[in-house]
Amino acid sequence: MEIKAGIIGATGYAGAELVRILLMHKCVKIVAISSVSFEGKKLSEIYPSYKSLCDMECKNADEVVEKSDVIFAALPHGLSQELGAKCDTEGKAFIDLGADFRLKDEDEYTEWYGGKFIDEELHKKSVYGLPELFRDNIKGKRIIANPGCYTTGAPLALAPAVVNGLIEMNGIIIDSKSGVTGAGRKPSQANHYPELNEGFHAYKVANHRHTPEIEQTLSKLSGQKVTITFVPHLLPVNRGILSTCYARLKEGVTKEQIRSAYEEFYKDEFFIRLLPDGANADIHNIKYSNFCDISLHIDSRTNTLVAISAIDNMVKGAAGQAVQNMNIIFGLDEKTGLVLVPPAF
Amino acid sequence: MEIKAGIIGATGYAGAELVRILLMHKCVKIVAISSVSFEGKKLSEIYPSYKSLCDMECKNADEVVEKSDVIFAALPHGLSQELGAKCDTEGKAFIDLGADFRLKDEDEYTEWYGGKFIDEELHKKSVYGLPELFRDNIKGKRIIANPGCYTTGAPLALAPAVVNGLIEMNGIIIDSKSGVTGAGRKPSQANHYPELNEGFHAYKVANHRHTPEIEQTLSKLSGQKVTITFVPHLLPVNRGILSTCYARLKEGVTKEQIRSAYEEFYKDEFFIRLLPDGANADIHNIKYSNFCDISLHIDSRTNTLVAISAIDNMVKGAAGQAVQNMNIIFGLDEKTGLVLVPPAF
Amino acid sequence: MEIKAGIIGATGYAGAELVRILLMHKCVKIVAISSVSFEGKKLSEIYPSYKSLCDMECKNADEVVEKSDVIFAALPHGLSQELGAKCDTEGKAFIDLGADFRLKDEDEYTEWYGGKFIDEELHKKSVYGLPELFRDNIKGKRIIANPGCYTTGAPLALAPAVVNGLIEMNGIIIDSKSGVTGAGRKPSQANHYPELNEGFHAYKVANHRHTPEIEQTLSKLSGQKVTITFVPHLLPVNRGILSTCYARLKEGVTKEQIRSAYEEFYKDEFFIRLLPDGANADIHNIKYSNFCDISLHIDSRTNTLVAISAIDNMVKGAAGQAVQNMNIIFGLDEKTGLVLVPPAF
Amino acid sequence: MEIKAGIIGATGYAGAELVRILLMHKCVKIVAISSVSFEGKKLSEIYPSYKSLCDMECKNADEVVEKSDVIFAALPHGLSQELGAKCDTEGKAFIDLGADFRLKDEDEYTEWYGGKFIDEELHKKSVYGLPELFRDNIKGKRIIANPGCYTTGAPLALAPAVVNGLIEMNGIIIDSKSGVTGAGRKPSQANHYPELNEGFHAYKVANHRHTPEIEQTLSKLSGQKVTITFVPHLLPVNRGILSTCYARLKEGVTKEQIRSAYEEFYKDEFFIRLLPDGANADIHNIKYSNFCDISLHIDSRTNTLVAISAIDNMVKGAAGQAVQNMNIIFGLDEKTGLVLVPPAF
Repeated sequence: MEIKAGIIGATGYAGAELVRILLMHKCVKIVAISSVSFEGKKLSEIYPSYKSLCDMECKNADEVVEKSDVIFAALPHGLSQELGAKCDTEGKAFIDLGADFRLKDEDEYTEWYGGKFIDEELHKKSVYGLPELFRDNIKGKRIIANPGCYTTGAPLALAPAVVNGLIEMNGIIIDSKSGVTGAGRKPSQANHYPELNEGFHAYKVANHRHTPEIEQTLSKLSGQKVTITFVPHLLPVNRGILSTCYARLKEGVTKEQIRSAYEEFYKDEFFIRLLPDGANADIHNIKYSNFCDISLHIDSRTNTLVAISAIDNMVKGAAGQAVQNMNIIFGLDEKTGLVLVPPAF
Repeated sequence: MEIKAGIIGATGYAGAELVRILLMHKCVKIVAISSVSFEGKKLSEIYPSYKSLCDMECKNADEVVEKSDVIFAALPHGLSQELGAKCDTEGKAFIDLGADFRLKDEDEYTEWYGGKFIDEELHKKSVYGLPELFRDNIKGKRIIANPGCYTTGAPLALAPAVVNGLIEMNGIIIDSKSGVTGAGRKPSQANHYPELNEGFHAYKVANHRHTPEIEQTLSKLSGQKVTITFVPHLLPVNRGILSTCYARLKEGVTKEQIRSAYEEFYKDEFFIRLLPDGANADIHNIKYSNFCDISLHIDSRTNTLVAISAIDNMVKGAAGQAVQNMNIIFGLDEKTGLVLVPPAF
Repeated sequence: MEIKAGIIGATGYAGAELVRILLMHKCVKIVAISSVSFEGKKLSEIYPSYKSLCDMECKNADEVVEKSDVIFAALPHGLSQELGAKCDTEGKAFIDLGADFRLKDEDEYTEWYGGKFIDEELHKKSVYGLPELFRDNIKGKRIIANPGCYTTGAPLALAPAVVNGLIEMNGIIIDSKSGVTGAGRKPSQANHYPELNEGFHAYKVANHRHTPEIEQTLSKLSGQKVTITFVPHLLPVNRGILSTCYARLKEGVTKEQIRSAYEEFYKDEFFIRLLPDGANADIHNIKYSNFCDISLHIDSRTNTLVAISAIDNMVKGAAGQAVQNMNIIFGLDEKTGLVLVPPAF
Repeated sequence: MEIKAGIIGATGYAGAELVRILLMHKCVKIVAISSVSFEGKKLSEIYPSYKSLCDMECKNADEVVEKSDVIFAALPHGLSQELGAKCDTEGKAFIDLGADFRLKDEDEYTEWYGGKFIDEELHKKSVYGLPELFRDNIKGKRIIANPGCYTTGAPLALAPAVVNGLIEMNGIIIDSKSGVTGAGRKPSQANHYPELNEGFHAYKVANHRHTPEIEQTLSKLSGQKVTITFVPHLLPVNRGILSTCYARLKEGVTKEQIRSAYEEFYKDEFFIRLLPDGANADIHNIKYSNFCDISLHIDSRTNTLVAISAIDNMVKGAAGQAVQNMNIIFGLDEKTGLVLVPPAF
């Protein structure tokens, strides 16, 4: 099989990472890429690391849609709904790395993003593409809302405990730390090298847009309305998100129950690596790969579960998961093109 | 006034940082330093950055005690009790950067450190030297238990809320992130450059030795027995600790009450910088200084206080605070030698 | 084709990188690995990034030789001669990432490494495996001396100018800067995170062991005895070597002649990317790949060629080149398994 | 004595570093600061590290000149001549951290900077402020051209060999590596964290504007017209410049002659630390200080001197040296306020 893939917004970080991954995918050919800022330029002029590997020229979005079987869009929110409609009409698969289709509740979308649902039917056709949690819903769909970065790692750390009813659903705290690529390619004072290097701080404390998306997932898994406290931080590294998740254990729940719930839940998931007792999830070990490493810790003095996940924000938290979704909807083995070995250093 | 200062364990990181600070202190003269590993070597051979500033030779501990008015000890735990006794006998001030005198409860000391109190009277004479919280107790004392790094930043972030009874004392979560110098000077696989660089992970999850020390402080401030969940992480930076502290607000407590409690509590504290609303404490801004920056955030969706503190683990979290304690017990202005300007980059 | 590959010294950095690359090579199966320090342990216990990808146990060297068609050895110098002899006797291919077979002159080997040639015939059977310069010699050989890291990047930067007689062969200066993985996996004070981070220095100035190896290559290319000044430096990054090479242009040589000589020389070389005028080779653009990027600069005020190359010290400077050599001697397309996309960030 | 100091361009990196240093200088009071971009804002809003230490508001340049005894200007080139004239007229000392007064030859200024000398007399009144080399000229002057960063470290590494006629003055190569603060505070794609981190490259190869300034100094010291090859590189660290300088030894010059020439030349220079044989200058050891560390190496195989200097580009390479110049012209001990201890980590 050769899938013709197109990337809209290829010069942003998520778009560029899609290029890296798709270049190594044996069933995919990148047929067109676009960029508003760099139309007419070669991708390898923007990213010299791709020289001789992807010297393709950036075109406009229409050309990408026309030529492709599957369209990946890595755009600022608000720009994907129209594009999704177009792909839908033309019978093409649309995998959206932006936020437009992620929240199912329009009011929440309006509250957090300030926009409206243009076409409610389209939103109903779309599916939230977190395969390890919602794989069955994804099959057969053509409009995929690819989850955000924080919204992948944190729910995966908590899901088995939630689904099995082992933790209290109120009072959950998610303390996440992300590498700088999460903030995008555009230079800013905050991410200017000398001001970020050797620094570390929280940002958007308790008001980051990924909050309702994490809550939506946890609510769906638990069958009740969940509200969390979510605090993201900026790490002076390029890639990776570590999410330290805190939840009170329900009365009587043991360490062993927790572990066996996780082992059972993830036993067939190639991309989830449940670490042995005593190990600590580390972003160092999953960089450049689609893995999500999870370590489990019980604070028996306070009866608290501390579940920690590590993902590459650009792979499992963006481009890799998008390709995983593509594999699902095109009927390929989910691992195809995604057995990316995380370097040892 | 010229205080004759000696440093035992001068070649470890905390000892070396004491040298840096004391060299710039106008009322202090370093008269002797010691090191078990490097006896007979010049300090500037170990740390070439000190060349021509401190070319003093490392002697043994006895010589340091003999020559000094104040002895700073930066030793592994278990080695300070005897030394403290000796200083006490000879009428010298003893400031211990190790853990031996920090915990007041011998059982806790035994549980977490595996040791015993050699001389209970000596422990009673000692005081826990966190000036912003316990200044009045420090004056007039000669044996100071200098707090650990995590145990300085986290309590300072929570103290005003605790003292004023604004938060629930159960369910407190402290998620801390420390620079690598906290792990000391000794090379290890974990802190070998290529394995730490571009990585990030938690360690000693819910079982770090600083846990009972933080609890001791919060218990003292609140008047009740407090148990916390404490998770430290290792940041790929040299210096700094950011502690993100989570506590449920008591019913009806407002954002304004929180802020005014903090403003009042710290209004005369030079080393505490309470940041304006909207700002985020950042280790970038306190490096190489004795400041503790604090930012306050309220998650009104879950009624949670998120108080974040940033300190330099080697200064306010070790050597700087030790000098602050020295200033107090010698009757100097507490800021003397400690108005260290944190570099802008 | 399925080549059975074994790695001796798999737990060092070069060995671990070989694992990463061979895992993605479609014609290779890793059949055995060994490690003196970790015999009996799983590789993924040493390098958790390989969990579920290479959970193979470390055996001893004999077992590796026995099971493999090709043996890669990543050992300290002095240990490969005997191993090479054994592989030769058993008719197996031997690719040595150590230094034992690199220098053709025994006196030089003795001077710089302090050892002797055990079996001169074996050394004659061996070939220096820098494919872009000596490809024809490599074909048909079974004992390959894989070049060192500095000794790959610097000669590639200069080769076209040397071969075409465009530069003076005396007075060549090579100023190289290497990432820390070049110093190996063993923790040391110098490479302890806080002492290396935010630092930069030269080391082994004008007496690094790679000096005679670079000279050997340049001498072979130029047909005359070449002596160079070589100064390596340690960069606070994990990977990559940038070599800034200075040589006086011969009288009358123009910028255009230089460029066209390089274009011609490297026109069929996939792994050499000659950058356009105005661009600067950057280790950022070749990390994790087998590329060698080269930028050319002429200082017309002093008539000096400044040729700069960037390679990943662990890939083109070690494991990647070893696999490239394997591809050659097994008759595979040289790029097989080596079209590794350098990430954009 | 209390010197009233003003800083024009206080929000750039050099200006901000001047604030840091002057705040710790016991004979100086900062009376006014200015910034075109941030007029009306507090400095501590731009640099939160200065909160409670310098909450002064940015004014305009006129106000600074009016209130100050000494005016430091850290401005883009072309803006200092007029300002210098004004200070001269008003009898105030003017220390220019920009390039306008550095080159004595107007043609060179025009060639490299594209500007003209507005008032030749003013240029004659000015002096090039590199104290270790030209101290006697500086005394009594009121217009100081503070050297650039590269142009401080490289000449200091070579001066004793030049002055004593120990090296050939043609063929000198200076390979420098600078921290990122040298590129200024303004965000750019090149210095966006993820694109610089883990990268390393040369820039402005053989055409950097500091070339004629280094040549001017070496020419003055040697009494002949010197042309050099200068290649700067960008290091992924905040601060520091390491310059590796290569020069052929004159016939018969010995290692001992070199060392004794350096020892003699710098024997009374507090800020120059000549390292012992075997040591390597490292930017790690001079950060945040006004020191220039120099290590000497002889390549006896090629008869080449390799002299390596390490300075903090923002201190000895900018703000620290400016204060050193101020101390000289105000008759203070040159070290006043500049015994800044470089941290051990």
